[in-house]
Order: sequence, then structure tokens, then C-alpha cells
Amino acid sequence: MPETNPPSSVQPRSDPPFCGAVDWGTTRFRLWLLDRGGGVLAEARGPEGMTRAAETGFEAVLRGRLAEVGAPAGLPILICGMAGARQGWVEAPYVAVPAGLTGLADRAARVDTALGDVRILPGLCRADRAAPDVMRGEETQLLGLDPAAGAALLCMPGTHCKWVETEDGTVLRFRTAMTGELFDVLGRHSVLRHALAPDAAGPDADDPAFRAAAARALADPDPLGALFALRAARLLGFAEPATGAAELSGLLIGAEVAAARRRHPGHDRVTLVASGPIAGLYDAVLRAAGFTVIPVDAEAATRRGLFAAARHLWP
Amino acid sequence: MPETNPPSSVQPRSDPPFCGAVDWGTTRFRLWLLDRGGGVLAEARGPEGMTRAAETGFEAVLRGRLAEVGAPAGLPILICGMAGARQGWVEAPYVAVPAGLTGLADRAARVDTALGDVRILPGLCRADRAAPDVMRGEETQLLGLDPAAGAALLCMPGTHCKWVETEDGTVLRFRTAMTGELFDVLGRHSVLRHALAPDAAGPDADDPAFRAAAARALADPDPLGALFALRAARLLGFAEPATGAAELSGLLIGAEVAAARRRHPGHDRVTLVASGPIAGLYDAVLRAAGFTVIPVDAEAATRRGLFAAARHLWP
Repeated sequence: MPETNPPSSVQPRSDPPFCGAVDWGTTRFRLWLLDRGGGVLAEARGPEGMTRAAETGFEAVLRGRLAEVGAPAGLPILICGMAGARQGWVEAPYVAVPAGLTGLADRAARVDTALGDVRILPGLCRADRAAPDVMRGEETQLLGLDPAAGAALLCMPGTHCKWVETEDGTVLRFRTAMTGELFDVLGRHSVLRHALAPDAAGPDADDPAFRAAAARALADPDPLGALFALRAARLLGFAEPATGAAELSGLLIGAEVAAARRRHPGHDRVTLVASGPIAGLYDAVLRAAGFTVIPVDAEAATRRGLFAAARHLWP
Repeated sequence: MPETNPPSSVQPRSDPPFCGAVDWGTTRFRLWLLDRGGGVLAEARGPEGMTRAAETGFEAVLRGRLAEVGAPAGLPILICGMAGARQGWVEAPYVAVPAGLTGLADRAARVDTALGDVRILPGLCRADRAAPDVMRGEETQLLGLDPAAGAALLCMPGTHCKWVETEDGTVLRFRTAMTGELFDVLGRHSVLRHALAPDAAGPDADDPAFRAAAARALADPDPLGALFALRAARLLGFAEPATGAAELSGLLIGAEVAAARRRHPGHDRVTLVASGPIAGLYDAVLRAAGFTVIPVDAEAATRRGLFAAARHLWP
């Protein structure tokens, strides 16, 4: 039986299960057993994301997790995320934007498996040679939001942060910022690693060093050109490694938000789709940049998006 | 005896040696035996830069290389570069800008060694808390240039590219762009590694993919925000990994030059201090950005700078 981290939960049931909803990312697996109202009957999560499942077998992972939550045989299963990538279980080809969100479920890829009706939602692509882009997983979060009337701008942070423009339930365009990955590779592999305390906790939105670095980046026409200053400040005794991670995070998120503000002059409101500490970091910088922030929990949005797509497929 | 790569050369001598001039970088060691006119009597180079010499001993490395080129005992030796860093042989503390170049030799650190009169030139720092910066080695190249009358802007590429403003032989300000290191860490450690052919040769200034990416970056108000497009273009079949390295290089150098152009609106000429393939890459992008380029060979500038400082110390 697969290990569980954090522990699965099985609630006392009132309604029969309607479907299994799976968020299958690169490094994480999450399964919800949902009733016909979208309520959570049971939940399981673990570290067997695409990378691990590609070695141990996708079907075996799913079978084990379904048994763990007591899913009845043949329950319809809807999956989103990297399980639908080319290197995943079954490829669910990208749907090109502009794309309506409610129709995405019709483009789900069917998996040939003894487990029954198992489908994987497609990602979205921007098939624009001047600005090519892809997403996989965020489209399901978008489907789980209350559709904004008119035009909306969404910020969906993570390893790769997606900036998405929607209008009346249609995704018009999006762009990916590699901010989270830049923080990781610069902090671990570049000369800036010497500017960061090796055992520091993750940046905190209330840290004055984070806020000051973000404010500088928002005001700097070339914030990423100031990266080396993090190292130089420590060589010259102006700053300590203890504040390095907060400064690097503030600089990078500030640079990203400053560019987004310039790119979207018509938007003064941003829907921030995020969970955990990163939500606080982006919230602080978006507000510092003058945006009004509408916060949405990313995990809840994924679950609601999977439920909406499942109701569309199995009315 | 230390290995030599490429082989040392010992020329037939006419004049007696005047001094030994050493460029001691992080990963490379170079020694020239110079006559009183600055002519090269002999030369040695090898991989025992600061990193290796810190383990095997700086004095042993220098002693071996001096013997190899047949330097007479007690010959004065002048060193520039990372041997003067805190983790080097003897620290030669940074001199703060604005700083006159000809006086730098007077701030050289003396090394207590049986080899005789051995000194290490200091680096420069910008002790500005809003834009702290440091250099070590480039100040010697600046000393080796014909001093420009009036104001000059210099671009000195490498792992860390220095943009330097001088006026009548004084360094006013400088700023470091981490472009070379960004190319390295993104290409090896980020998701962009999948966009680069693993065995590709280094980028070439004549490569259309390099030039196109640089042109796009020069025209893009947020070129570093377009990094993920390199990956997406390959997922969508718009481009091949074979051109990935050229595109990443063009994007990063283009972003750097675009920012420099905005930061220095009063300069239409740039002195480009560089050797090897990187000289061609920066030359192409600087010209594409509308700059007039004055090329200077970086290695020759280092040698001339060491000679100028040696003549100042030992007239």
C-alpha cells in the first residue's frame, strides 16, 4: 500500500460517491472522492506525482489510492495536470487559446484501463509563434472559479507563474513567468548562493527585507539587472546572509509584477489564485504595485474545477 | 612541475626581464615575463586559478610557473585578479569609486614571500547602498586602455559583465550584469535545459537564431519574462533544441544591452573589452542596439594594465 503524506482522511458518508477527482502534478498526487453536490467524502494525497508514477506505473498508483478511500469499483475518475503530459499516463493534447473553459471536458483523453471510465483533462496552449506558451493544471483551476463577467486578469503563482487574461469564461491569452524556478536555481547554483543563509526559512510576506526589495524592484526599470547587488552588498558588509532569501524573493516577484503592471495597463484588479506562503508574498507585492487583489484558494479551485468538468461529462 | 595548458612559450631574449605580470582569475592563471618596453619575453598559462591554488598553495604555483619561464630570482611580480580576494592569497581591499586608475598601483597589497617583491592590485567597489557592486581584474584592463578623453562607456563581458562609466581616467560608476552565469545556470539547472541540445557548440554571432532572439529581446519591454517561451516553443513544435542555446544567449545578451541602452541615453559609443567568441556575440548585439562599438582585446588590455602599474611602482 502506498505511503500517505499527509494522512488520508475518510469521512463518515451520507451521500454515495459521484466521481473521483485527481490533481496529478509533477511531484504531488491528490484524490478527492466527491458526492453529487461536490462535497468531499474522502481524500488522499501523496508524493507519487508524474515523475514517480512514470516509474511505478500510473494505474497502480491510482488503484491503490482509490482502494484507500474506499471508492466503489467502476467509479468515474477525472484527472487534471501532468498525468496528461506527453511523458505522463496518456497525452491529453493542449487546447489552443482563445478557448472556452466549459468545453474543455469534452476534449479530455480517455485512458484504456480496467479501472473503468478514467479521463484526463487537456492543458491549454498559446500557439502564437511570437509568444508561445503552455499550461497544464491551471486551466482546471480557472474552470473552478466563478466566471468573471467581462475582462479579468489572473495571477497564478508557482514554480512557473501564469498570468491569464479571461473574458466571459474564455481564456484569451496567458504568459508564464519562471519566477519560482529562478529563485530556486539562482539561490542554489549561482554566485548568489553565497548571499543566502543555507538554513534560512522560506521568505515571509511580513519581512521588511522582502518588502523593501519588492518596492525597489517595482521602482527599478531593470530590476533583474540588480541581482548581483545581493552578492556585492554582502561582500561590502551592507547586508547579512540572513536576509538574502527574502531580498531575492522580493526582487524577483517585484520584477515580475512590475512587468505585468506595464503589460496590462487596463487592469487595476487581479484575481490571485494561490495556496500557502506564496499567496502572502504575491498578495503583498500586488498591493504594493497598486493592484486590488481578489484572493482565491488554488487547491479549492482545482477541486471545484474537476467537479464542474465531471458534472459536464456525467450529468 | 605543474601541468601546462596550453603550452608555455619561451621566446629568444633580447632585453632583460623587467617584471612578472600575473592575471590570477578564479579558474585560470596567466604569467607574462615583460621587458622594460612591455614586450613579452615569455608566457605561461594554466588551470591553477584561485580555486585550485587555494588548495595547493599560491606561492608554490607562482614559484613553479616562474621557474618554467626562466625568471631570475627576485624579479618584481605584479598580480591582478582573484588572488587578491578575501579567499585568495593576500586580500587587496577594494578601492571605492570614483577612483583614478593610475593611482591604483599605490594601493597594491604586498605579499610576504621568499619570492621577493610580490604585490597584488586591488579591485574596485561601488560603496553605494542603493547599488552596491564590486570588480576584481577588470580595473586592470581599464588601466591598460588608452585613457579616453571625456566620458566613456565600457562593456566588459564574462561570467559577470561589467558596464563601466569613466571620465578622463577616473572610474565613476559601474554595474554588474550576471548574464553569463544566467546562461549557465538556466541552461543546466532549469526547465530550459530541455530546450537546449545537450551537445551543442557555443552560440555563434552569425547564427540567425542568435540574432533573431537578440532582436526580439531588444524590442521587448520585458525580455526576461519571455524565457519560458524557449521551452514552450519546443513543446509546441515551433523550434528545435539545436537552436536553443543560441536563442537563450541572444535573449539574455539582448535583455542586458537593452537595459544598458535605456540606462545610458547619452552614450552612442561603447568600448567593448572582450576576447574570444563572447566578443563577437556582444559586438553583434551592441550594433543591433544602435551603438558604435570600439573593440579592445581583453587579454592584451590586462597585460598592458599590469605593465602600466608595474612601471608606476618600479620606475
